[in-house]
Parts: sequence; C-alpha cells; structure tokens
Amino acid sequence: MGTSTILPDLGTEIVIPVCAVIGILFSLIQWCLVAKIKLSPEKPFAGGGRHGYAESLIEEEEGVNDHTVVRKCAEIQNAIAEGATSFLFTEYQYVAVFMAVFAVLIFVFLGSVEGFSTSDQQCTYDSSKLCKPALATAIFSTISFLLGGITSVISGYLGMKIATYANARTTLEARKGVGKAFIVAFRSGAVMGFLLAANGLLVLYITINLFKLYYGDDWEGLFEAITGYGLGGSSMALFGRVGGGIYTKAADVGADLVGKVERNIPEDDPRNPAVIADNVGDNVGDIAGMGSDLFGSYAESSCAALVVASISSFGNNHDFTSMMYPLLVSSVGILVCLLTTLFATDFFEIKTVKEIEPALKYQLIISTILMTVGIAFVSWVALPPSFTIFNFGIQKEVHNWQLFLCVSVGLWAGLIIGFVTEYFTSNAYSPVQDVADSCRTGAATNVIFGLALGYKSCIIPIFAIAISIYVSFTFAAMYGVAVAALGMLSTIATGLAIDAYGPISDNAGGIAEMAGMSHRIRERTDALDAAGNTTAAIGKGFAIGSAALVSLALFGAFVSRAEIITVDVLTPKVFIGLLVGAMLPYWFSAMTMRSVGSAALKMVEEVRRQFNTIPGLMEGTSKPDYATCVQISTDASIQEMIPPGALVMLTPLIVGIFFGVETLSGLLAGSLISGVQIAISASNTGGAWDNAKKYIEAGASEHARTLGPKGSDPHKAAVIGDTVGDPLKDTSGPSLNILIKLMAVESLVFAPFFATHGGLLFKFF
Amino acid sequence: MGTSTILPDLGTEIVIPVCAVIGILFSLIQWCLVAKIKLSPEKPFAGGGRHGYAESLIEEEEGVNDHTVVRKCAEIQNAIAEGATSFLFTEYQYVAVFMAVFAVLIFVFLGSVEGFSTSDQQCTYDSSKLCKPALATAIFSTISFLLGGITSVISGYLGMKIATYANARTTLEARKGVGKAFIVAFRSGAVMGFLLAANGLLVLYITINLFKLYYGDDWEGLFEAITGYGLGGSSMALFGRVGGGIYTKAADVGADLVGKVERNIPEDDPRNPAVIADNVGDNVGDIAGMGSDLFGSYAESSCAALVVASISSFGNNHDFTSMMYPLLVSSVGILVCLLTTLFATDFFEIKTVKEIEPALKYQLIISTILMTVGIAFVSWVALPPSFTIFNFGIQKEVHNWQLFLCVSVGLWAGLIIGFVTEYFTSNAYSPVQDVADSCRTGAATNVIFGLALGYKSCIIPIFAIAISIYVSFTFAAMYGVAVAALGMLSTIATGLAIDAYGPISDNAGGIAEMAGMSHRIRERTDALDAAGNTTAAIGKGFAIGSAALVSLALFGAFVSRAEIITVDVLTPKVFIGLLVGAMLPYWFSAMTMRSVGSAALKMVEEVRRQFNTIPGLMEGTSKPDYATCVQISTDASIQEMIPPGALVMLTPLIVGIFFGVETLSGLLAGSLISGVQIAISASNTGGAWDNAKKYIEAGASEHARTLGPKGSDPHKAAVIGDTVGDPLKDTSGPSLNILIKLMAVESLVFAPFFATHGGLLFKFF
Repeated sequence: MGTSTILPDLGTEIVIPVCAVIGILFSLIQWCLVAKIKLSPEKPFAGGGRHGYAESLIEEEEGVNDHTVVRKCAEIQNAIAEGATSFLFTEYQYVAVFMAVFAVLIFVFLGSVEGFSTSDQQCTYDSSKLCKPALATAIFSTISFLLGGITSVISGYLGMKIATYANARTTLEARKGVGKAFIVAFRSGAVMGFLLAANGLLVLYITINLFKLYYGDDWEGLFEAITGYGLGGSSMALFGRVGGGIYTKAADVGADLVGKVERNIPEDDPRNPAVIADNVGDNVGDIAGMGSDLFGSYAESSCAALVVASISSFGNNHDFTSMMYPLLVSSVGILVCLLTTLFATDFFEIKTVKEIEPALKYQLIISTILMTVGIAFVSWVALPPSFTIFNFGIQKEVHNWQLFLCVSVGLWAGLIIGFVTEYFTSNAYSPVQDVADSCRTGAATNVIFGLALGYKSCIIPIFAIAISIYVSFTFAAMYGVAVAALGMLSTIATGLAIDAYGPISDNAGGIAEMAGMSHRIRERTDALDAAGNTTAAIGKGFAIGSAALVSLALFGAFVSRAEIITVDVLTPKVFIGLLVGAMLPYWFSAMTMRSVGSAALKMVEEVRRQFNTIPGLMEGTSKPDYATCVQISTDASIQEMIPPGALVMLTPLIVGIFFGVETLSGLLAGSLISGVQIAISASNTGGAWDNAKKYIEAGASEHARTLGPKGSDPHKAAVIGDTVGDPLKDTSGPSLNILIKLMAVESLVFAPFFATHGGLLFKFF
Repeated sequence: MGTSTILPDLGTEIVIPVCAVIGILFSLIQWCLVAKIKLSPEKPFAGGGRHGYAESLIEEEEGVNDHTVVRKCAEIQNAIAEGATSFLFTEYQYVAVFMAVFAVLIFVFLGSVEGFSTSDQQCTYDSSKLCKPALATAIFSTISFLLGGITSVISGYLGMKIATYANARTTLEARKGVGKAFIVAFRSGAVMGFLLAANGLLVLYITINLFKLYYGDDWEGLFEAITGYGLGGSSMALFGRVGGGIYTKAADVGADLVGKVERNIPEDDPRNPAVIADNVGDNVGDIAGMGSDLFGSYAESSCAALVVASISSFGNNHDFTSMMYPLLVSSVGILVCLLTTLFATDFFEIKTVKEIEPALKYQLIISTILMTVGIAFVSWVALPPSFTIFNFGIQKEVHNWQLFLCVSVGLWAGLIIGFVTEYFTSNAYSPVQDVADSCRTGAATNVIFGLALGYKSCIIPIFAIAISIYVSFTFAAMYGVAVAALGMLSTIATGLAIDAYGPISDNAGGIAEMAGMSHRIRERTDALDAAGNTTAAIGKGFAIGSAALVSLALFGAFVSRAEIITVDVLTPKVFIGLLVGAMLPYWFSAMTMRSVGSAALKMVEEVRRQFNTIPGLMEGTSKPDYATCVQISTDASIQEMIPPGALVMLTPLIVGIFFGVETLSGLLAGSLISGVQIAISASNTGGAWDNAKKYIEAGASEHARTLGPKGSDPHKAAVIGDTVGDPLKDTSGPSLNILIKLMAVESLVFAPFFATHGGLLFKFF
C-alpha cells in the first residue's frame, strides 16, 4: 500500500501536521509583533526603551496631547471590540440552535436510508465488499458537521479578535509613517490568514485519523462521513456572510445617509451615533464573514476531492499518501505563503503611498509562482505516475503531470481573476475613472455606468473559470475540478492576509477620525483604505471563483453519490431545475438587499432621532448613544438573516424530497452558473463605485480635481453610487458564494437519502 | 392523407388565409375610425357635419385659440413622424447591407454541407427516402430569411406610421374626455396588433405553399428551409430592439438630465431641444422595436413547431391539417382578439381615469378565456386523437387533449406573467409604493429597493414558465414547448394593442405639453400614460416569457437537427458552454447600457450647448434646434448597435465552428436560463421606478402627498431612479429576448453545417 509514491505514508503523516503547526506558530509570532505596539499611555516605559510605544513617542508629531490621543484610541477600540464580540455571541446563540436542529436532521435522514440498521451493508461502488452501516455514516457525518461548524466559528471569532486588536495599533503606527502602519495591518491580516488555513488543515487531518480508527479499510464510508465537515463549515459561513453582511451595511448605509448626506459631516465623525456600529460591521462582516466563507470553500473542496478519491484507485488501493494529496497541497501552501509574507513585511519596506498597491499585487504574483513549484513537487512525490479517477460510472486514467496541471490552472485562474478585479475596481485604471467621470451628469449616469462596469467585469473571470473547468474536468473529471479549486485556495493564507488588511485599515481610518487625529494621519489611513477596497474586491473575486469550482466539484460528487450517470438538459425534470436554479440567486439577492435596506432605514431613524433629541450633539459638546445603534444593527441582522438562510437550507431538501435527484442536479447547476455572474458583477460594481468616490475625494489627478472637491455635485452623485454599491458588494454579492456552495454540499451530504427516498411528487403522479 | 382529422385539408387551406384577411380588414376599419379625427383646422366642415373635427369643436374647452392648437399639434406630429421615418430609413440601409451579407453566408454555409451538389440525397431522419439536395435548402432558406426580414421591416414600419398618425389625434380627443382619448389610442394599437399578426400569418402561409411547389413530398426539407423565416424576422428584431432601444433612451435620458434636473423645466417642454427626439424614440423603440420583437417570436415559434412536426407523424404521414396546427391556432387567435377588442372599444365605454387599467386588464382576461375555448376547438378538429412526436431520437405518442393542454398552459402562463408584472410595476400596489417610500432617504435607497423589487419579481414568472415547460415538454417534447410559446403568443394582436397603446399615450401627452394645451388635458394624457407604463411592462413580460419558450423550442429543434441525443451537464464541453452562455447576457447588457450612457452624454452636451448659446430659449422666445438632437440620437444608435449586434450574430457561428454542437448546446441553454432572469428583473425594475415617480407626482393618496410634490427631495430621488431604469427597461432588458431567441434560431439554421464541419478546435487538439 502506498509504495508507488516517492513520499512514504509515514512521511505524509508527519508532513501535514508539521506544516499546520508551523503555520500556527508563524501566526503567533506575527501576533506578538503586533502586540508590541502598546495601547496604554499610562506606562510609557513598558515597551522597553527603544521599542514599542516609547519609540513611537520619538517620531510623534502630535506630542502635546499624545496621552489623550492614545487613550482615546484605546477607548474606541474597546467599544468596537465589545460591539463585535456581543454581536458574534448573539449570532452564535442562533447558530447553536440551528446546528443542533440540523445535526438531528442529518442523523435522522442519513440514518433512515437503511432503516437505522446496525449491520454492515454492501458498499455502494464496490458491491463485492462489505462497508460500515448507514447508521455509522449518519453518526460520523453529524460529528464532522459539528466539527466543521465549530472550526468555522473559531476561525471567524479569532479573525475578528485580531482585527479589533490591530485596528487602533495601525492608527497609532500611522503617526510614524505609512510604511509602519501598512506592516501592522498586513501582519494582523496574516495572523488571521495563517491561523485559519493551518487550523482548518489540522482539524480535518485529525478528524480523518480519528474516524479511521472506526472505519478501518472502509474508506468509502469514511470520506462520505467527512463531507459533513464541509457542510458544517459552510453552514456557519451562511450566517457569517449573510448576518455579518447585513450588519455591516445596515450600519454603513444608515450612518452615511444621515451623516454624509443630511448633516454634511465627514465619514467616521465621532458625532455620528452609528459610527461605532459601522466600524463593528467591518469586523463582523468583512473579517469574520469572509473568514468563514473561505474556510468553508477550503473545507468543501478538500472534502469533495477526498470523497471522489475514495472511490478512485487511491481509495480502492488504500494508497494513503495519494489519498492525502489535497491536504499535502494545502500544507505546502502554508509554507509558500509564509515565505511570501516575509516579502511584504521583512524583505522590502513600503515608504510611500504609491507602493502599497504594488506591494499587495506582488504578494499575489510571488505566492502564485512559488506555489506552482510547490504543486509540481507535491505532484511528483505524492502521486503515482499513473492512476485512475472515478468519472460518473467509469474509471478514467490520469497521469500525475495532468493533476499538476489541474491544480495549477486553478491557481493561475485565481491570479487572473485577481488582476481583472483590480483593473475594474482600482481607481488607477480607466474603468473606475470613467464611472467617476459619469458623475458629472449626476447619480443616474453614475449608477448606469457602474452597473455596466460590473456586468462587463464578468467576461474575463468567467472565461478563466471556464478554462480551468475545461482543463481539470477533461484531465481528471470531478477530482480535477476539486483540486483546481484547492489550487485557487492553496494560497489562502496570503489571500486572507491581503483581504483582512482592508477592513483593518478602514477601521484604523475610522479610529483616527474619531480620536481627532490630524489631517496627515487621516490621509495615510485613507491611502491604506483605498488600496484595501481593491484588495477586498480581489478577495471577493477569489472567494467567488473558488466557490464556483468548489460547488461544481461538490455537484459532481453529489451526482456520483446519487448514482446519476447523465444530467441531460433535454429532459423536462432537469431543465426546470436549471431554470428555477438560475432564479434562486435573484430571489436570494432580493431578500438580502431588502434586508439591508430596511435595517438601514431603522438605523437612519435612530440616528436622526439622536441628532434631533440630544442637545449639543452636532456641536460636539455631548456624546451620542453608540450602544443603541450597535443594538439595532445586531437585532436587525439576526432577524433578517433567517429568511435568506431558510431559502438556502430548505431548497435542496424540498427539491430533493419532492422532485428528486435529477431536478436537484439541474437546480444546482442552474444556481451555480447564474449565481457566479451576479456575485462577480455585484462585488465589482460596488468596489468600483466606492473607489470612484475615493478618486474624486483624493483629487490626485487633473481629471479628478475637475470632479471634486468633496461636496461638489459630482461628488454627491458618487456618494449615492457608493451607497447603492454597499449592499451589492458586501452583502448580496458575497452571500451568493454561500448559496451555491452550501446547496451543493448539503445535497451531497443528503444524497444517499434523496437517492433512496426522494422524488415523492413524481412517484405519485 | 389528412383523413384522420375532422377538418379536411381543403378546409385548412381556406380557413388560414380567410382569418388572416379578416384580421387585415379589421385593422383597416380601425384605421379608418382613427382617421376620422381631422388634423386640419383649415377645413372646419370637412368631417361632414356632426362627425370628425366639427363635432370636436362643440365640446371644445379651449375654443378661443382652437385653430392654433390644432395646427400646432399637426406640426409637432409632423416633426415626430419625420424624425421617426428618417431614423427607420437610416436603420434599414444598414439592415439591408447586413441582410445581403448574411443571406450570402447562409447560402454558402448551408450549400457547402454537401459540397453544393445538385443531386438528391438521403433524408436525415428517414434514410429510406430521397430528399431534395442541401443546395435547395440553402437557396430556399436564404429566400425565407429575406422574406422574414422584409415582413418584420414592414410590420415595424407600419406600426410606427400608425403610432405617429394616432398620437396627435389622441391629444385632440383628450379635449373631449379621457374615454374618447383612450379609444383612439387603443384602436391605433389594435391596427398595429392585427396588421402584424395577420401579415405574419399570411406571408408564412403563402411561403409554405409556394415552397411546396418545389419540395413536393419532401416536407423535411421544406420546413427546414422555412426556419429561415424565423431567422429573418429575428435578425430585424435585433436591430429594431437594440437600435431603437438605444435611440429612445439616449433621447429620453439626455432630455431629462438637462431639462428636468438642471433646468427644472417639465417633461416634454417645447423649450427642451431633445423633446422631439424623445417622442420619436417612443415610436421607433417601443413601437417598431416591440413589433419586430414579437413578430420574431411568433415567426420562430411557428417555425420551431413546424420543423419538429415535419419529422413527427404529421410530417411522415403528410397530414396537412395537423401539420398546419400552429397556423390554425394563430388564425383562431386573430378571431378571438377581434372579439376581445370590441369589448374595449364598442361594448363598454371608459368614463373615468380609474377605469383605464381595469379595462386593459379585462382585455387580457377575456382574450385568454376565449382563446382557451378556441384552442380546444382547433385541437379537436385539426388533430387526430393520437399521433407521434419526434423526441430526440425516438417517436413519442401524444393525444390531442395533451396538445390542447400544452398550448393552454403557455397561454395561461402568459396571463400569470402579465398579472405579476402588473402587481410589481403598477403604483396601485405595495411594491411600487414601497419603492416610492424609500425615496424619503434619497436616491440610494430608491435604487437598492428598486433593484431588489426587480429581482423579486422574477420568482413567480419563472415558476410559471417552468411549469409550462414541464407540462408541455413532458406531454409533447419540443413540439409541446413550441406550441406553448404559440399559445402565449396566440393573443398577440390584443397584447400588441395594449402594448402600443402606451407609447401612443406617452406621445399624446408630449404633444399636449408642447402645443401648450391646458393642465386638464395634460392630466388626462398623464393618466393614460401611467396605465401605459404598466401595460408596457406587461407587454415586456409577455415578450420575455414567450422568448424563453420559443428559444427552448428552437434549442430543441437545433439539437434534433444537429443529431445530438443528450446534452449532458456532466461533460466539460457542455458545462463550459453553460457557464459562458450564462455570462453572455451580462456582456450584452454591459454593451447596451454603456451605449445608452454614452449616447445620452452626447445628447446632454448638445442640449446644454443649445441652452447656453441660443438666446431667448429658456424664455420661450426662440425655438430650439430639434433636428440636431434627432440626428445625434440617430447616429449614436446606429453606431452603437453594431457591437452588441455582432456579439449576438457571431457567437453561435464562432462557437459552432470552433467548439462544435455540444458546447453550442450548452451555450444556448446557459444564455436562455440566465437571460430570462435579467430581462424580467430589468424591465420590472425600470417600470417600477417610472411609476414610483409618477405615484409621487400624481399625489393621489395621503401617502403619496407626504412624498411630493414635484421638486421635493423624495421626488428628485425618484427621478434618479426613473433615469437609471430607462436603459434597463427599454434597452438592455428587452434586447435580451432577441439575444436568446436569435442565437437559438441562428444555430438551428446553421445546424446542418455545424454538425458536418463544426468543432474544429476539438478536432485538432
């Protein structure tokens, strides 16, 4: 067993946990470096002479009221962290109830497949062997579902903790220069990226090894049970993305509508009662939500690859090293990202604002190039030269170099999507400048041009995804697609670091404004933030691109598990599934956008009420009631996330039970191909509007100055576009990733049940 | 032959042309009734005593300057008609070049299938028989392509002529009351509806009979050649919809941005230089464009049904009456619509504004109920009790009552789509009122709520379409889907009458404003127009619903003709086709929306220039230069329609030639299921914004008055939404119908070529 690979099984068993631990250690080191910046002015010498806070004093430009500023920053950070923690705890209470109910559902549905029988049964794919009972799969699926959920919760929570720890520190470092601030923000992003990647890998690896104690040689059952891990991860992501997305945008839109538009006060002005809620939102939506989304993708693509491999020659021959190929790719990914991070934090130094965007771009390029080498190495040592992969009923021969190409094509497609997203959302290029220019004739043309930009930005990413699918699908069927998704996610630590950097910088700017720091500091954090808008869009591009590949792989695994050989568009059952599936993203987006709208209206009323009833608020002599606004956002988002959540979770169950697996296949394919387009266009449109506004505000070019300054008519039009874009780019767009992935993984987990008991409606008529 | 049906073949040969001629005669009578209203004040007694103009004098409320007003109306009408005619002629010149090139392409591609051989060949489906050479199919396809194109051009042109003839007459009748004005507008719409339906039927019928002289018993070849008719009709629709759509919205948006927003002058104010171009736009976009779109759907669904029938038992047994079933359904449809029209114009009379919308709604209900009876009758007399339909390789048995259900389900799905559209776009219901209410917090929330409304409005129509597809597909395969589409279009004469009524009323309002008529007259035309916005949305709902069914039927016919047995989502070739196909509507919409944007910007510059350079323009003492604005719209739309047109026409050719029929099948299915959603949401969002604005302006309820009056902040926000909606509802949305239909019919026509020579890329690699 496993003798045909260069890397022995024992090596695999060592390499994976070692890489995971290295990742965790690296993130702890980064954390320590960030923690050196002190937030407690009371002990000026605590940092130890030349380091930490004492050092910052030397280059401080606002030395006079320094203590006050630092104390203010600490206070604000505290308020943000408290708001975020309280929201996440409220969210997790609901999540816990949901997890419990769904765990029961999984157990009952999967257990009932063989009538809760405790005796071994014929294997599904190799009927000559005996496999563990369906009841065992039900129990272990439930356990891995809970593990996936808990790991996702921990990832999101830690990410939020780190971000709310880093934001004020970034602000303080901004006093020393843009380069120092950049490093703090980026390091904190890296903490989250590495923790998440390493944690996900480690838990998955341990779970597999523990489950193996029971399953022994029944790898088919083992990896079928492991798919619950993906479902758990993705279910949490649903609440993280949707709940967090509604939270952040209700606060943001509400704050902007009254603050910027009605009262004409700047963004993040401390007089605005919704300002803390807005900053909390960045942390729970963009950090915790994004974290659990990408963790979900990572867990699901690993599970999809494993479940297909278990019924291919890897699984049939019990070739452990080859079986663990997906986890080995992720392990090498952690090492590659570690090296890549050093390029940003240690090998080079950022000195001017202009260097920020290129530095982040180099991160993408360096990690992609290094990872290509890494994939080649893993494919060489961990795969036999030739093997077979299960392909809808038949075994297909695959060579190791073909699998290398499958992973690489996913990786490079990710880079292309990243670059295209940057082109369409950065204000350094003509698309955003054209949108800004259209503000001359008002908000209407701004919205028209922005929507058109989003639509147009789909073209190249879709071709990139289509090419990766074609290559990986042709070479290695659904296994190929799954590892292509893993390829795109193999640099997840770097991707998340870049992505988390955005909201941290955004918060840093907010804290600078609220603490009343000087114009120069605010300019620096604004520059960090503008680059962050673009990287956030790039992160969303990765998230949706990988979600598309992942859900196709899950879809393929579902189809295999449901024992369907063809999904023929030319049958009515499949076609109506396709059509209705393509409609679901619209239904879902309608819900999430309206949710943001109504929650924002509630926020607007509260903010207006405070401005009208609290005397001295506009003059800055009295403080607003931040807590009520935080509460409104919390309540609204918890309440509003239920209907879209129900739509996603119930649709596969209803369709599977009443219409059967053919219609469900069509539905999954339809929602995938339609959802990916809306998600890409929504996040790019929103990013472009945001940066068009920033372009006018910054006034860095001759053209930009003709549109500005802040408060001019074109700028007002740009603000309207930005506000429309908020729910598109941060709520409805990214939530669609979850829609397409979660429906697919849920179908996969319930596939045995649907295949046995599904399609009631067609059975009766 | 034909002995198994109750209706003998001779009866069929008489019934179809007779019904068509009745339709043409009826529309001429309606025309004469409209023409009785005189537009020449110089001859006050020309109308013959108590009728015509003389009568109108009696109830005239502005008797003093009556002659001037009538003369002004005539002048304005003249200017609009001239602008529209000149645009259509320019458009037709380009169209003629395109037609010539494409005709050559069809001839060369189809002729080359058998190497331009002139000898008879084996039939495709029945290899025991000899069929006419491929060269004959090439020649006759080319001829029917040209005939389809010419018929479409004539339909669009006549529609425009009638509309520009009726608009001023509606204005004049509005002086006598809203009921009289309604009847004129509706009658004129009916002229267009009946002419188009009857003309399309007659030309198709004559073409079939003429082609039969050559083809004789080779019905397979005969009806394959007839598909060119659908392609011709749809190609024209492309230019009509896209060119006309860009024209009308460039003018509209341009006029509004400067007039309403910057100069604060009312809509249709004669001082606005773009006002004539705006009114011309309604006629070339909404009338001529919509006419050729629906004509295209009608021609294509007939062709799709015929081509499938020709290889089913109808064709194999040479059962002429059954073969003509689709045409018989359309013939009965003309009679049903005739009766329905009388309910609006003669049986009942509209007295108040409130009765307008119900009257139009009753038209839909009455025609649907009557038509159900008509379909039952035709299915009974023209079909044998049982027959077989070709279903991807096998013959499937079908009963006549099943076919009745197929047609009826399409018809009733159309009604449901109509009602849902009304619910989401009429300001009598809560969705539009909610959107209006969101204007309180500004344009951004208005846009967010509007987009969400459009997304939500997809749900029920998609279910309605899915159910019709499921029923018709299950009962009678692709033939069922084709006749379901025909069912939806069987009441096309009424649908078009209702639809054309909208732009005519819109123009009538414009003329009233420009001619300086009193406030009361303008209120009446506004009420007509508000109902017209809803009916326009309903018309668009029908157009997209039928387009979805039609393109599925065409897709099925293409798949059959290309000899594909399954279109399996689980093959990479098909899946990438699906994914890229789903992206095409976004690409296409990006192009059309940007086109409107840039054309509108040009218009804005010209209008601003005129306001700034022509002295006395704002004061009304000197006249603007209308002609330049008309010219700008004409040039911009002709120029801008080429890239999206090329995308639609070239994609199937490129994919078919290089990637082959499997990828092309995926592409067609993908663009169909994705395009239908965007089209529905775009047209409903736009309609809702327009009526939200009208709701605030009219101030008919307590709630509406809190948002108004004109010029208030919520009203300004509503105007921005309306402007954003303009290109969505009148350009990009409706153009998508053409995208999905045209790519399908083009693939069908070129299917023999692709099947023989296609897929070059995969052949080489």
